[in-house]
Amino acid sequence: MNVEFINPFLTSLLNVMSTMASMELEPGKPALKTDPIAKGDVSGLIGMVGPQTKGSLSITFERELILTTMQKMLGEEHEEIDDEVTDLVGEITNMVTGGAKNILSDKGYEFEMATPMVVTGKDHTISHKAKGKKIIMPFSSEFGTAFIEICFEH
Amino acid sequence: MNVEFINPFLTSLLNVMSTMASMELEPGKPALKTDPIAKGDVSGLIGMVGPQTKGSLSITFERELILTTMQKMLGEEHEEIDDEVTDLVGEITNMVTGGAKNILSDKGYEFEMATPMVVTGKDHTISHKAKGKKIIMPFSSEFGTAFIEICFEH
Repeated sequence: MNVEFINPFLTSLLNVMSTMASMELEPGKPALKTDPIAKGDVSGLIGMVGPQTKGSLSITFERELILTTMQKMLGEEHEEIDDEVTDLVGEITNMVTGGAKNILSDKGYEFEMATPMVVTGKDHTISHKAKGKKIIMPFSSEFGTAFIEICFEH
Repeated sequence: MNVEFINPFLTSLLNVMSTMASMELEPGKPALKTDPIAKGDVSGLIGMVGPQTKGSLSITFERELILTTMQKMLGEEHEEIDDEVTDLVGEITNMVTGGAKNILSDKGYEFEMATPMVVTGKDHTISHKAKGKKIIMPFSSEFGTAFIEICFEH
């Protein structure tokens, strides 16, 4: 799994958060993930299947960050991670993956997206079980941190 | 989404647990899921994509049930939901989905499987965001309960 394949997902998350929620996230340093350390309050997860590869992606948000995103994106104040908030996390997951899919398609990498799932729970962790390297990258903001994790197998 | 499409997943879970772990689970009543009520300690999740449909599946285990399964399946005593336990949950998720895929392929329904993800965290919840009915079904045992949830869109 190379940078050319990963970067479109990171770019797409920045684009979605900027254009949809006027949130400018600060990308941190990508790292190889060796244990399920991404802790957050709500995560969107999606599977991908293509002729060359298959894998999974997750985007984990800290509570304040997703509630602020909800407010900026939809103008709605939510105090808790309720169904509408998880719907938004699912939509963001879809949009980020769809954006990356378009960029990668232009480069000759094709895959189909499954439907998103959203997990809630204080300090839940996610382990991607594809047989390949796991990339994790934090994105920080004044409202908290989001983590994107990607794992593909060949 | 009809019974013909759902039943292979339920059958496959019973088969996998029986043959691999000598655990006879008692299937409960399937229900339409209207909120993310499946609470457990560890869940395997997987996405599926086919020409006719796409969707997602999750299998959630209570702590004692998966630790007992680990002991029966691999002869290993684990006190906590560690990496080896989440690996097993990923494998079970793959096997259950793969078993259902084979049955459904014989009936003319084709789909490809993404790679599994495993979520841990006390009382985490899962929302499947495919635009379709969500089916949830409990499976009970003397060691605790497992829940399978399936959601497909057409």
